[in-house]
Amino acid sequence: MSLSAVLTRIDDQLPTALDRLSGLLRIPSISTDPAYDADCEAAADWLVNDLQSLGVKAEKRPTPGRPMVVGHIDGPEGTTGPHLLFYGHYDVQPVDPLDLWHTDPFTPEIEDTPHGKVIRARGASDDKGQLMTFVEACRAYRDVTGTLPCRITFFFEGEEESGSPSLIPFMRENAAELTADLALICDTSMVAPGVPSIASQLRGMLKDEFTITGPRIDLHSGHYGGPALNPLREISRLITSFHDETGRVTVEGFYDGVREVPADLMRQWDTCGFDEQEYLSSVGMTRPHGEQGYSTLVQQWARPTLEINGLWGGYQGAGTKTVIPSEAHCKLTCRLVGDMDPDTLRAKIRKHVEDRLSPDAKITWNQDLDGSPAAVMNTDRPEFEAARQALTAEWDREAVLTGMGGSIPIAGFFKEVLGLDAMLIGFAQEDDAIHSPNEKYNVESFHKGIRSWARVLDALAK
Amino acid sequence: MSLSAVLTRIDDQLPTALDRLSGLLRIPSISTDPAYDADCEAAADWLVNDLQSLGVKAEKRPTPGRPMVVGHIDGPEGTTGPHLLFYGHYDVQPVDPLDLWHTDPFTPEIEDTPHGKVIRARGASDDKGQLMTFVEACRAYRDVTGTLPCRITFFFEGEEESGSPSLIPFMRENAAELTADLALICDTSMVAPGVPSIASQLRGMLKDEFTITGPRIDLHSGHYGGPALNPLREISRLITSFHDETGRVTVEGFYDGVREVPADLMRQWDTCGFDEQEYLSSVGMTRPHGEQGYSTLVQQWARPTLEINGLWGGYQGAGTKTVIPSEAHCKLTCRLVGDMDPDTLRAKIRKHVEDRLSPDAKITWNQDLDGSPAAVMNTDRPEFEAARQALTAEWDREAVLTGMGGSIPIAGFFKEVLGLDAMLIGFAQEDDAIHSPNEKYNVESFHKGIRSWARVLDALAK
Repeated sequence: MSLSAVLTRIDDQLPTALDRLSGLLRIPSISTDPAYDADCEAAADWLVNDLQSLGVKAEKRPTPGRPMVVGHIDGPEGTTGPHLLFYGHYDVQPVDPLDLWHTDPFTPEIEDTPHGKVIRARGASDDKGQLMTFVEACRAYRDVTGTLPCRITFFFEGEEESGSPSLIPFMRENAAELTADLALICDTSMVAPGVPSIASQLRGMLKDEFTITGPRIDLHSGHYGGPALNPLREISRLITSFHDETGRVTVEGFYDGVREVPADLMRQWDTCGFDEQEYLSSVGMTRPHGEQGYSTLVQQWARPTLEINGLWGGYQGAGTKTVIPSEAHCKLTCRLVGDMDPDTLRAKIRKHVEDRLSPDAKITWNQDLDGSPAAVMNTDRPEFEAARQALTAEWDREAVLTGMGGSIPIAGFFKEVLGLDAMLIGFAQEDDAIHSPNEKYNVESFHKGIRSWARVLDALAK
Repeated sequence: MSLSAVLTRIDDQLPTALDRLSGLLRIPSISTDPAYDADCEAAADWLVNDLQSLGVKAEKRPTPGRPMVVGHIDGPEGTTGPHLLFYGHYDVQPVDPLDLWHTDPFTPEIEDTPHGKVIRARGASDDKGQLMTFVEACRAYRDVTGTLPCRITFFFEGEEESGSPSLIPFMRENAAELTADLALICDTSMVAPGVPSIASQLRGMLKDEFTITGPRIDLHSGHYGGPALNPLREISRLITSFHDETGRVTVEGFYDGVREVPADLMRQWDTCGFDEQEYLSSVGMTRPHGEQGYSTLVQQWARPTLEINGLWGGYQGAGTKTVIPSEAHCKLTCRLVGDMDPDTLRAKIRKHVEDRLSPDAKITWNQDLDGSPAAVMNTDRPEFEAARQALTAEWDREAVLTGMGGSIPIAGFFKEVLGLDAMLIGFAQEDDAIHSPNEKYNVESFHKGIRSWARVLDALAK
């Protein structure tokens, strides 16, 4: 039976697959920083070449930003399987603070750890390692059977970490080419080690940034300390005003569109194997710090947030500078759930801040930042049950429909632009440190991830 | 009469004096940043050479930090004038943000402005330009009379902008050599354009810095947004807790040792020519933002402050990074008045912060920062009245005893270590932008400053 031969092939070829992944990880394809444009191009070229080695008709497609990679391949002669679209992203997060990395972020290394072997590099987990689990499953399938199990369209973008500005226009212009029966996405994590997970709801995101200007110029804190408005104190006061002492966001209308978790889903979550203590203690927390009255898992999966991601102003160098700076800066993001609308919420947040601004304080907002609503999957489709059984077989543990704290806007865009349902299956672990120094991907996640996709493809093709 | 000949000489030699000042301003002697150590040495060497050209026995004296410059010269044969010690500092503040400078900070330029000619460079006003007013007065005096009017010790340091760590030990080790009848200091400003000012009370300073650590590592705001403690929100809350809505500092015991301004001094201040509207509007303020119930001048000269000088954490680069950072940082300084004790106050501020720390938040304090109490001058000494009359004659405007918002710790150290009273006479203007981009010194301040010192020296020598 060909599936078992494919799985054996995957086991045999694991070292080669890890070498290929390392090649992709060596390319510093950071999309938020224009300094890495050429590296993003190189990562796209790398993927085009790799897909072509599978017999996929793949090409790099230009956009106003980073290029897309699109590839097509048919299934076996005369079969009538589904047409699947697989999505992943080849761009990665910035690496700062670089001094906290123990190894070079773009020199992947296989390490033995108390929890098994890992491959360590920026992008190892988010999303290059995950993306390659699907590609390697296809490769093994082809090596054994000569073809892929069904018709597949590959669709990789290079702007996921910078808000995917080119994605929707590109999908609109190429809707006919990209439309399929179902989208598969590998950019999510497992709810607990060894627990196969299909993400059924994802939080959306809203990004904003503002600058507070007080004095016209930087001032001497002796000459002006007291009479002058200090923008660092002003911005701290504004940031503090976003939450009350229970952790609830105080922006008027912030919770419009938020719904409580249905009881049946809640029961699944209560037994999904999520280890609250491990989740918290692994990052140095002894308790959840979100909205009081909600469990840690609900705070992460089903409650909206307003978080500060960057805050700066004044002197940051060695020693002291007795300055009252002219400017202070704040970057923030909100995680959205249910029917929260990013554009409406942006207006509410800006009004909250502007209503509380002190006299003589001026505010400017970054006008280039975007947002995306939360995404809830159509889990009634038969493919979800088929995939659940395939994952259960591979991991020998009941697969669960989970929520996701992170935003994967693409899932919503597939529905919105192409009318396409998406299924999110991923193998990342909570401790992968994605977006942080020393990001890693478990070799087991990579290996069993490839095997999982082989099983899922086999199941969906039938 | 030799004084008028000296004043004429000063007028004739002004261009040459400006050239000499430019030479000193070209040396980037930034003391807070070790990268400029060699430049601090070069500035000290420059001063040693310049003093030697006046016949002063001057030398560079090593310290664990930046070197001191000490020079001695006797007065005319057989005269019994006072022994004066003149103090200034050759180090300057950092220049960031560099992109806000319209000219190179270390390429001095003479500019015509609506308010007259200025010389623009970092240190032009604080303190190289002011220091040189005294040196040039001595030079003119010597050119005309062949000697200086009385015995003078020159004492220049290079760590004033970084807390003068070597100053007190050096003064203790060299107390006999540095002791004189009176210390003269030129590092202060005029209360209003054209109003000669003797600073009779200066605010002290306390410096501190802390880091808040929340999560063990930087976190993804999707995976941990909600449950994780965000140190940027935590530090904002702590900073906000320092003040109430009336601008009063809420740290328990903060105001211990603060006294109200005596009525007679208050009357002097009310008529000293301070232009509140100009002072505020020149930096974009429409009102004073310090403690309610105190005038702008009292907020600046006679009330203590707790100001934030630096605040940073998380992502500051282009675009967005959906991170909850592990750390947030805050630099603060307090301006002290009356009998406020820096060490006692430091403990109170740290207790205030630690009492309000959230669970799971850790705090570390910079242990290397210092403080100095406020300084009140002994204005009953006859030299003050003699100097007042000399300044009044030069500026044709009654000289006034003013307060100072800034800290000149040296004044207190002279008293504390050498038992030496100090007299602070300076010619800086509020709009000199010291510690800010585009620092300048009015050519009139430089020119009439030199003439003022010639008159003061002449008066004190008698």
